Amino acid sequence: MVKRNPNIAKLPAGYLFPEIGRRRRALLEKHPDAKVISLGIGNTTEPLTPHIAAGLRDAAVRLGTAAGYSGYDDDPKGQALVQNLKAGISEKWYRGRVAPEEIYISDGAKCDCGRLQLLFGAGASVAVQDPAYPVYVDGSVMIGASGAHDAERGQFGGIAYLPCTPANEFFPELSSAPRTDLVYFCSPNNPTGAVSTRGQLKALVDFARRNGSIVVFDAAYAAFIREQGLPRSIFEIEGAREAALEVNSFSKPIGFTGVRLGWTVIPKELAFEDGSPVGRDWSRVTSTVFNGASNIAQYGALAALDDEGLAEMRKTVDYYMENARIIKAGLAGLGLTSYGGVNSPYVWAEFPGRKSWDVFTEILEKAHVVTTPGSGFGPSGEGFIRFSAFGHRADVEEAVGRLKTRL
Amino acid sequence: MVKRNPNIAKLPAGYLFPEIGRRRRALLEKHPDAKVISLGIGNTTEPLTPHIAAGLRDAAVRLGTAAGYSGYDDDPKGQALVQNLKAGISEKWYRGRVAPEEIYISDGAKCDCGRLQLLFGAGASVAVQDPAYPVYVDGSVMIGASGAHDAERGQFGGIAYLPCTPANEFFPELSSAPRTDLVYFCSPNNPTGAVSTRGQLKALVDFARRNGSIVVFDAAYAAFIREQGLPRSIFEIEGAREAALEVNSFSKPIGFTGVRLGWTVIPKELAFEDGSPVGRDWSRVTSTVFNGASNIAQYGALAALDDEGLAEMRKTVDYYMENARIIKAGLAGLGLTSYGGVNSPYVWAEFPGRKSWDVFTEILEKAHVVTTPGSGFGPSGEGFIRFSAFGHRADVEEAVGRLKTRL
Repeated sequence: MVKRNPNIAKLPAGYLFPEIGRRRRALLEKHPDAKVISLGIGNTTEPLTPHIAAGLRDAAVRLGTAAGYSGYDDDPKGQALVQNLKAGISEKWYRGRVAPEEIYISDGAKCDCGRLQLLFGAGASVAVQDPAYPVYVDGSVMIGASGAHDAERGQFGGIAYLPCTPANEFFPELSSAPRTDLVYFCSPNNPTGAVSTRGQLKALVDFARRNGSIVVFDAAYAAFIREQGLPRSIFEIEGAREAALEVNSFSKPIGFTGVRLGWTVIPKELAFEDGSPVGRDWSRVTSTVFNGASNIAQYGALAALDDEGLAEMRKTVDYYMENARIIKAGLAGLGLTSYGGVNSPYVWAEFPGRKSWDVFTEILEKAHVVTTPGSGFGPSGEGFIRFSAFGHRADVEEAVGRLKTRL
Repeated sequence: MVKRNPNIAKLPAGYLFPEIGRRRRALLEKHPDAKVISLGIGNTTEPLTPHIAAGLRDAAVRLGTAAGYSGYDDDPKGQALVQNLKAGISEKWYRGRVAPEEIYISDGAKCDCGRLQLLFGAGASVAVQDPAYPVYVDGSVMIGASGAHDAERGQFGGIAYLPCTPANEFFPELSSAPRTDLVYFCSPNNPTGAVSTRGQLKALVDFARRNGSIVVFDAAYAAFIREQGLPRSIFEIEGAREAALEVNSFSKPIGFTGVRLGWTVIPKELAFEDGSPVGRDWSRVTSTVFNGASNIAQYGALAALDDEGLAEMRKTVDYYMENARIIKAGLAGLGLTSYGGVNSPYVWAEFPGRKSWDVFTEILEKAHVVTTPGSGFGPSGEGFIRFSAFGHRADVEEAVGRLKTRL
C-alpha cells in the first residue's frame, strides 16, 4: 500500500486555525446561546466597497458577452488583463520600483508560499522569525526541508528560529543567526504587529547578501503602514533586488480574503548559485501547478488600483485600524502591555508568566471572545495573545467591554 | 548562494503550452498579418451562459452588502457557501455516489494536481498513461519523485510510462505494468480523446487494489460523455472507494477556465499503509498552502448546478462537441485517421511515419492553425497531433477549410 508522506506525518495534529475552530465549536456545544465574537483569525468582515464591488460585478457581466469573455490567462484578453494588473501594481503600489514583468499575479500570498516550497525544494535550509505565521514553517516541513518535530521545544529540527520579542524590539539578533538559504520575514508582522524600520530591513538585506541567502518578504499588511518613513516593501531597501522576493495580497486592504488575489515580486537580479534567474524557475513552477487567479478577482483588483479604488482601500484600512486602536486602548485599561496595533492590524498582548493556551481558554470561556494563542506561532510567542482588528466595530467594542468586565 | 532546486533543473526548458505560444508568436513576427486560429490549448472561447453569469454577478453584488459579505471559507457565510456547493456537487454531479464531506472545493484540477504532489511527496512512485497531460509528469518531477530526464527517450527515469495507442485501444497493458504507488489516469483522455469503458476502469481499479496503489483519476472532461453506459466518474466502479481519488473541474463544461473552480473527491475509505485516511492529510495540505476558491466562483458554480445552470452546461458542451464533429469530419475528408472527438473535446489525429513537431510546424506555417504536437504529451504521442474542439464555430470551420486547401 501507499506509505503516508513522512513529511506530512511530522506535522503535529491540526493547523493552528482549524484547532481554534474546533475549540470554538466545543464552546458552542456547551453554551449554544453564547454570542461568540472572533478577534482570532485575521478574517475581513466589512462589505466590499462600492467601486471595487462594481468592478467585480462588471467583470461577471463582461464574461457573459462575446466581446468580453476570456478563458485562461494566456488567451489575448486574459493576457491583456494580467498585463494591465501588473502595470497597475507596478505603478500604484510600487511607484515603479518594480517592473510589471517582475510581478506574478496569484490567488493569494499563502498559496504562493506553498508554491515557493516547490520552487526551492527540500534542499533549501530555512530560518523564520519566532513567532511567525505558521505557513512558513508548516510548508517547509511538508516539502521536507525540516527535521522532526520536537514537542517539548515546540520546534522542528533543521529550521532556524530567530526569536523576536520585546527584548529585541521584535527584530532578530542577526549577529548570532545561522546562515540559511531562505529567511522568511514578515513586516508589518503577523502575529506581533511589529513594523520593521528602514535600518532594520537594511540590516536584514545586508545579512542576506553576506550569506548569499534569499529573504522571502511577506508584505501582506503593507497597506496598514501609515507612518511616513516606514518601508512598505523590501524593495525600498538598497540591495534587496539581489537578495529578496516579496509576497503580497489584496486580502486585507480591500477585503479580498474570499475573492482571492495576491502577487509575488521576483526581481530580475535575483539568481541562484548557478546564475540562473529565480524568476524563470518561478514561471516554470506556476505554469505547471497553477492556472492563474480568477479573472473576475483580477478585474476587481484593477478597480482597486484606480483613484476611487485606492480611496476606498484607505477607508477600509482606516476602519480596521480604528478597531486596533480600540483593542489596544482596552487592553491598556486592563493594565496589560501590548505591542503592534499601530501601522498593523494585529495587537500582541503580553500575559507575563502565563501559558498562551490557558489565557486563550480563559478569554474564550469567560468572555466568549476568540483570540489566537501566541504559542501557536512559535515558542517565542508563549505568554502572548494575538488580537486581530478584523471585525465589525460593534463586535470589537463589545468584546473589549467583555474583557473589561468578565476577566 | 542558494542552489537551484535540482528537481526543477531536471525539467527540460519550457512547459509544452508556453513553448507552443513562443512558436505562435514567432510566426506572427514573420507574418504580422496572419490570422492565426488556435485549436491548440484547450481554452474555452464562448461567453458564459446567462444564468451562470448572473450567478457570478449577483455574488459580486452580494459581497458589497453587510448581509452578504463573506471572507475566508471558515467564516459562517463562507462555510455555508462551501457546504452548499459540496452538497450540490454530491447530488447533481455524483447522484449521491460520493458524500459532500468527501468533496474538497478548489481553484481547479491542475492546481489540485500540484497540491497532490505535496500530499504524496517525493517518495511516491508514479505511473502515467503515455501520452498524458503534462502536469502529472512535470509535477512529479518537481516534487522529486522521478529520476533524470532522458532526452533521447523523452522520458524521466523512475516514472512508469504506460503506452496508450490505437493498438491497445488507448488502454494500458496492465498485465505488464509495474506496481507503483500512484497511477495517473484520465478519461475522457487528454490528449487522445479516448473514453474508458466500465470494464476497462474495473480492470484499472482491480489492478490498483491488487497492488495497493492509488489511482489519481482526472475526470475534468466527464461532462463531455453523452453515450449511455460510459462511466463519468471512477466512483461508478466497484472497489474504487478504496483505491482512487478523483480531480474534477468546472473549467470546460461551463467555460470557467478563467473564473477558476474545481474539486477533488477523496473517499473516506481511501487510506495509507498505516490506516490513516488520505483525506485527513489532504485537509492538512490544503488548509496550509491554500485558502479556498474564490467565493464568487463558488456562487457561479452553485448557479451551474440548478436546473437552469445544468441546461446551460449541456448547451455549452453541445457547442464544443459540434466543433469536434466538424474537425473529425474534416480530417476524415483529408484521408486522415483520428481518434477521440466523440464523448470528448479532443481529436487525436494520426500522421503515420511523421514527427509531431514537424506536422505541427507545417500546419502552423501553411494553414496558420495552432495545434498541439502529440509528442509533447509523451513518447507514445509521437506521430499524432491533438486538435482541440474549444474555439468559435466560425474559426473551427475556417481552420478545417484551410487544412483542406493548404496542406
